[in-house]
Amino acid sequence: MKKENKAAVAAFTDREPLEPVSELTTNRLSVYLRCLNTLDAEGVKTISSQALAEQFHLNAAQIRKDLANFGEFGVRGVGYYVKELRSHLRQILGVDRRIRVAIMGAGNLGLALADYPGFRDEGFEIAALFDTQREKIGQRSRGGVPILDVRTLRRTVRRERIAIAVIAVPAASAAAVLKAVVDAGIKAVLNFSPGALKVPPDVKVKSVDLTVSLESLSFFLAQGQTDAE
Amino acid sequence: MKKENKAAVAAFTDREPLEPVSELTTNRLSVYLRCLNTLDAEGVKTISSQALAEQFHLNAAQIRKDLANFGEFGVRGVGYYVKELRSHLRQILGVDRRIRVAIMGAGNLGLALADYPGFRDEGFEIAALFDTQREKIGQRSRGGVPILDVRTLRRTVRRERIAIAVIAVPAASAAAVLKAVVDAGIKAVLNFSPGALKVPPDVKVKSVDLTVSLESLSFFLAQGQTDAE
Repeated sequence: MKKENKAAVAAFTDREPLEPVSELTTNRLSVYLRCLNTLDAEGVKTISSQALAEQFHLNAAQIRKDLANFGEFGVRGVGYYVKELRSHLRQILGVDRRIRVAIMGAGNLGLALADYPGFRDEGFEIAALFDTQREKIGQRSRGGVPILDVRTLRRTVRRERIAIAVIAVPAASAAAVLKAVVDAGIKAVLNFSPGALKVPPDVKVKSVDLTVSLESLSFFLAQGQTDAE
Repeated sequence: MKKENKAAVAAFTDREPLEPVSELTTNRLSVYLRCLNTLDAEGVKTISSQALAEQFHLNAAQIRKDLANFGEFGVRGVGYYVKELRSHLRQILGVDRRIRVAIMGAGNLGLALADYPGFRDEGFEIAALFDTQREKIGQRSRGGVPILDVRTLRRTVRRERIAIAVIAVPAASAAAVLKAVVDAGIKAVLNFSPGALKVPPDVKVKSVDLTVSLESLSFFLAQGQTDAE
């Protein structure tokens, strides 16, 4: 990212952190946002970092430290205004505008992700599913997301202003699909396919390998197996 | 985990690492296992750490270091025997036996996970889905996994020797479902529900928050937005 562009953004929005923040921090910001959504829905107006931490099993000092990266949000003697902090976090995380997402692969996983209510609630709009199987193309997910021919990817990405692609295809097709996604100009990819993928440096891939998650649990169980029995 | 039990296990298996290993290491072991599966399926007999690293975009020194935690697997001038290393990794990760898994919630996500082919390929067997909705109970997933009444959880876990529970219910029910899972004696939980969950110290929860993953991408896009345009 060019420095002068970052400065230009900072002048017009408060999205820009005071210092570079880690992915662990942004992950925690997402969790805070989820908590604030719950509080807002319950009609809670203000909350202290301490109460927030207690109610959601978080760390109060960590909350204050994470938020301090982005400015002064707390008010002495009051804590945080729930609606206001929620709106700030949405802006920081870039979900104050709707972000359009394409899902590659209209199998079980792709279809489930297309209709995952959490995405829409948080400002992500699943614009389309893409597949190669002729019998799927032209159909829709249960929630109404259209299944398009992967050969229309590039022009759909441009027309629909799709910013993120989710890869939900079998491992054997993942590399080819990723290449198509990058060629279509997408810079952010959520990957559900196992194995490492190589991308240009200006593209960000976040991988969720469901089998790796299960294996880390089975490793935990295997190491502790005499206790479990 | 009791020290004497760990020693007893080490005497009979080579599952026990020489030193405690981090979750990042076990995650990488899972990735190596996936690569070896591919090589084995392609009929490759031996491979050097260098060739393994190149083919799958990994780090050769890291591979050697990770494996060295568990013993001597490489042979000078040959590299690794693919089948042999694969079998060792399966043992280390505890997937040399079939591990039985329950999925809590037979919505889109639960049903997709139940039929996710990667799990079965890697030694995980989805024994049952659990739900509370009467019209779902008694049905099966497309792949044949039965949907059972959550009220039968405790006895099903015992009878079917279920070791891992996957939580795929809406956020509002997650805490109650987790409590039921822990009460049923399950020690390892893969959680797809957003928000932090509290468990006893002998229970391991691994959370996969799909919205958090997307938000870390949208944060990346928001910070770099002037470049993307």
